[in-house]
Amino acid sequence: MRPFAYFERLSQAFHDYPSLSKILVVSTISGGGLIVYSEANPSYSNNGVETKTRKRKVVLLGTGWAGASFLKTLNNSSYEVQVISPRNYFAFTPLLPSVTCGTVEARSVVEPIRNIARKQNVEMSFLEAECFKIDPGSKKVYCRSKQGVNSKGKKEFDVDYDYLVIATGAQSNTFNIPGVEENCHFLKEVEDAQRIRSTVIDSFEKASLPGLNEQERKRMLHFVVVGGGPTGVEFASELHDFVNEDLVKLYPKAKNLVQITLLEAADHILTMFDKRITEFAEEKFTRDGIDVKLGSMVVKVNDKEISAKTKAGEVSTIPYGMIVWSTGIGTRPVIKDFMKQIGQGNRRALATDEWLRVEGCDNIYALGDCATINQRKVMEDIAAIFKKADKENSGTLTMKEFHEVMSDICDRYPQVELYLKSKGMHGITDLLKQAQAENGSNKSVELDIEELKSALCQVDSQVKLLPATGQVAAQQGTYLAKCFDRMEVCEKNPEGPIRIRGEGRHRFRPFRYRHLGQFAPLGGEQTAAQLPGDWVSIGHSSQWLWYSVYASKQVSWRTRVLVVSDWMRRFIFGRDSSRI
Amino acid sequence: MRPFAYFERLSQAFHDYPSLSKILVVSTISGGGLIVYSEANPSYSNNGVETKTRKRKVVLLGTGWAGASFLKTLNNSSYEVQVISPRNYFAFTPLLPSVTCGTVEARSVVEPIRNIARKQNVEMSFLEAECFKIDPGSKKVYCRSKQGVNSKGKKEFDVDYDYLVIATGAQSNTFNIPGVEENCHFLKEVEDAQRIRSTVIDSFEKASLPGLNEQERKRMLHFVVVGGGPTGVEFASELHDFVNEDLVKLYPKAKNLVQITLLEAADHILTMFDKRITEFAEEKFTRDGIDVKLGSMVVKVNDKEISAKTKAGEVSTIPYGMIVWSTGIGTRPVIKDFMKQIGQGNRRALATDEWLRVEGCDNIYALGDCATINQRKVMEDIAAIFKKADKENSGTLTMKEFHEVMSDICDRYPQVELYLKSKGMHGITDLLKQAQAENGSNKSVELDIEELKSALCQVDSQVKLLPATGQVAAQQGTYLAKCFDRMEVCEKNPEGPIRIRGEGRHRFRPFRYRHLGQFAPLGGEQTAAQLPGDWVSIGHSSQWLWYSVYASKQVSWRTRVLVVSDWMRRFIFGRDSSRI
Ligand SMILES: Cc1cc2nc3c(=O)[nH]c(=O)nc-3n(C[C@H](O)[C@H](O)[C@H](O)COP(=O)(O)OP(=O)(O)OC[C@H]3O[C@@H](n4cnc5c(N)ncnc54)[C@H](O)[C@@H]3O)c2cc1C
Ligand SMILES: Cc1cc2nc3c(=O)[nH]c(=O)nc-3n(C[C@H](O)[C@H](O)[C@H](O)COP(=O)(O)OP(=O)(O)OC[C@H]3O[C@@H](n4cnc5c(N)ncnc54)[C@H](O)[C@@H]3O)c2cc1C
Repeated sequence: MRPFAYFERLSQAFHDYPSLSKILVVSTISGGGLIVYSEANPSYSNNGVETKTRKRKVVLLGTGWAGASFLKTLNNSSYEVQVISPRNYFAFTPLLPSVTCGTVEARSVVEPIRNIARKQNVEMSFLEAECFKIDPGSKKVYCRSKQGVNSKGKKEFDVDYDYLVIATGAQSNTFNIPGVEENCHFLKEVEDAQRIRSTVIDSFEKASLPGLNEQERKRMLHFVVVGGGPTGVEFASELHDFVNEDLVKLYPKAKNLVQITLLEAADHILTMFDKRITEFAEEKFTRDGIDVKLGSMVVKVNDKEISAKTKAGEVSTIPYGMIVWSTGIGTRPVIKDFMKQIGQGNRRALATDEWLRVEGCDNIYALGDCATINQRKVMEDIAAIFKKADKENSGTLTMKEFHEVMSDICDRYPQVELYLKSKGMHGITDLLKQAQAENGSNKSVELDIEELKSALCQVDSQVKLLPATGQVAAQQGTYLAKCFDRMEVCEKNPEGPIRIRGEGRHRFRPFRYRHLGQFAPLGGEQTAAQLPGDWVSIGHSSQWLWYSVYASKQVSWRTRVLVVSDWMRRFIFGRDSSRI
Repeated sequence: MRPFAYFERLSQAFHDYPSLSKILVVSTISGGGLIVYSEANPSYSNNGVETKTRKRKVVLLGTGWAGASFLKTLNNSSYEVQVISPRNYFAFTPLLPSVTCGTVEARSVVEPIRNIARKQNVEMSFLEAECFKIDPGSKKVYCRSKQGVNSKGKKEFDVDYDYLVIATGAQSNTFNIPGVEENCHFLKEVEDAQRIRSTVIDSFEKASLPGLNEQERKRMLHFVVVGGGPTGVEFASELHDFVNEDLVKLYPKAKNLVQITLLEAADHILTMFDKRITEFAEEKFTRDGIDVKLGSMVVKVNDKEISAKTKAGEVSTIPYGMIVWSTGIGTRPVIKDFMKQIGQGNRRALATDEWLRVEGCDNIYALGDCATINQRKVMEDIAAIFKKADKENSGTLTMKEFHEVMSDICDRYPQVELYLKSKGMHGITDLLKQAQAENGSNKSVELDIEELKSALCQVDSQVKLLPATGQVAAQQGTYLAKCFDRMEVCEKNPEGPIRIRGEGRHRFRPFRYRHLGQFAPLGGEQTAAQLPGDWVSIGHSSQWLWYSVYASKQVSWRTRVLVVSDWMRRFIFGRDSSRI
């Protein structure tokens, strides 16, 4: 058994020096051409944590992008964290469309949350359960586990908190269109992706059975995607590649029967992207034979047919084999209920302030897809701003007073900076100059409230909701964990902007989103990338960029290696078509 | 994007020369120390097959070990093969216990049957359906697909055959013990293994929930394995490793609560193995803390407790969290029904002759776990044998006549050779000498029928049922395919032994099983191997042998690479504990 001695020794080395394994594995992988890197991520042991004072209990709901990045970052041993989520793992959603067609395996895009939690300095424990009620009065959350478990066979229990962090994400939105819930596939969870995968294979198997006419076979092999956002588009192109690169070889008779249709209610697909990308994608899909129906609003679905209305009001009904529904997100019941309790019943998502605190609730934070930041408007506060700035209470601001307050204003109201950028201005003085020029006032050294108003009157037009993306959720999780880490320090030495309608300063600087760009994989090794500064790139090279960014963004070394090796497997052997 | 150029070129090379990819991939893998080899397997294209004469239609039921090896081997373009099975892939069952704990992924142990079929010279097509009735009268099989599919929403259809090959395997046997069906997990199919995996993780999650006392947690973490055969033993040791190597790190509180119990009705586990292996396994399990209860016959199961009776008749009831039932195999309903039709209603498996033809049926063959060879006894045929050998019709056999017939006898009745081997004899003459010595007759040059009888009277004691293993099934599949390939040739020039009760020769030599040895993985990188010639080896080195044999035995290069890379992943990252 000589050759194995090397392997055994290697194994020993891996166990003795875990970091060695990483270097070795990566050098193997990058030998294949992919550059994979990792942020330095020091790991602390759980032992030796001292528990002299009572720890403050943080309850975290959800183990998605927001929850996982919160857990990964939090690093202050004075907290005790109780994580509650119906799934005991984090899922890397951007690769879910790839899971639907077996380009990547389900297991490669998930990481057990206990692994993420275990590495940290903080005491963390996990409960696999769903929260069904939040009670801010008694500071409790009520939860339900899937199986009857405790002594009385009861499935429910409650958990106290000092701080509650809500990161439960959103659910698919059917807009109450009849038949959607019952007949469509959604693509939110890993299980959805697995189900889609086996349904695709099933469709091909069914269409191969005897006793069917061509029309029936065609129906079974008609795949409809509803929603031309990034997820729908990516699924459509993954499916197209799966069918054309792998399935037609195994089901040669199906080749001329397969049809993919994409229905989009708006006038274009990928509307959140640059026009060049949208056009490219529409053209590519047409070339590929994917039937893109723009301006088509689905009105009804039954078990065999889907009906859509054009803008002209014409309703057409098409037979289908499988529908994937990907049109947007809605609010989860537990969040709806909580919103009602705290007087937010009319809103579409949980409103927080700029520090991610739920409006009107003490010690409750919300982030990710379930929440939305209710950005304060400058014009609502303009009188208070003026008052604050006018230290001498003179009724006018000197230039010095104006500049002193404006850096805090920019911190507090991110729309100011966005406005400057959108107008190509370099600083706050440009804004003032412009206002004065418009008003015809000559450059006075002092300015009154009307002049301040007219300088700032347009900045609020830049207040925009953040997109419901993993990027936003992850940045919010990191931000909030850092706030928690520094809670005591900042209590004493606040580092936020001055309070406009109160005394002193805010403890923290408010959350600020940094957009890092977006990808839209379009199939056939073509990916569109839109990076900050409107840098647009489409083609093979952005596909490689996509590969390396997505590989590097995996939560752990394990998932990184799995994802990369899945790509290599696909590349060598094609995708698997076993119905499991 | 420089570094990718290499990768892209490589990709091109792979697609242009598929065999290159194999060499490259394997050289990478064997760099890690594993020797992976493949039998040469020339691939033919389906095109260019000429269909001048009507092809004979072979219907194959089942895509397991027997079916897949039949398909892989068959290579005569005068057949048209229709494969029917409820699953569109072959599953490598010996690795199923590893799938239950994530040592190997489900997808790595399956291969789409269309991939296996596509490589061959023969026209093959596949239907994903279950056969529910075989009608030998009209030469039809009746099938049902899972979903309602054809024009009238009917799920059923029938298929004609010229030859029918039955390879539907067996199902788990509950021996009608109450509660087993409803409460136990079985381990026959890939889906079973996946379900077991998520149930194990679920048990740990459930036991971590609040509101439980220690006794309840202990119950949830009590895993019971029923059956001490290779599958039960391997599952128990996989589970032990999974718990101790991976899960206790993530669920530290569970460490002292987990218990694995193995119930076996006989006096020992692994009874089909050498005593040294049995003893080693029992001792190892005791050391590992696995509670092996021998002589325990399960009598009842409910949703929380399992009751077993000792040989003394004492019934004890133990609470459990999960049971895996692995006690033996039973007959599938479709086979039971068919057996009734052909007058085999009292048997336990479909009886075939030594050429795998179902007794009493024309053109129907059965192989693998659903069938059993009804080996003809020498003593039943002894008069005919004598008559056949006595060419001159003299009433006695000359030595020459005796030797002439005996090589055919050895071919026709494998028990003769087994008997010689078991007695340490070298040839048929030894047998004769012994008989003559026992009878006190001096070495005459002629022998009469009584002398022949007494020489052969004990050989039938060696008639043994072949074990229900993949090894047997695969050899039968290969054997039968080779017979089919040479059907016409052998019709003209038969190559089997002479017909004892008829004229001429049998077309083919009968099926002969060649036992290649057996492994029993015992956990902790310890594997017991029993190879032909009673060569027994236990330990790390047989574990490596196991790895390399199992890697080499995969059906395709794809599964080979997947399995090996799963092992490497496990080895580096441990097993994944996400509940998907
Ligand atoms: C197919 C697909 C592709 C995507 N691709 C991208 C992309 O490429 N880039 C990008 O930036 N974004 C992408 N997104 C969007 C991104 O996944 C979401 O914006 C992100 O997941 C939101 O993070 P979250 O933590 O708020 O919610 P989620 O990640 O959805 O996590 C919510 C968590 O809460 C848990 N939970 C749910 N209900 C309860 C309850 N009642 N009690 C306790 N826990 C609960 C869930 O189990 C889950 O763990 C994609 C989304 C999908 C579906
Ligand atoms: C967990 C486990 C581990 C094992 N380990 C080993 C080992 O290490 N070594 C070894 O030699 N053997 C092993 N075996 C035994 C081996 O798997 C079986 O002996 C072998 O599978 C028998 O092959 P088969 O083709 O007869 O049946 P199977 O492999 O069971 O295949 C039966 C096929 O028939 C199909 N089928 C079922 N019903 C119908 C129907 N009504 N119509 C049409 N098709 C149908 C099934 O879907 C399947 O494709 C193991 C078995 C198990 C369960």
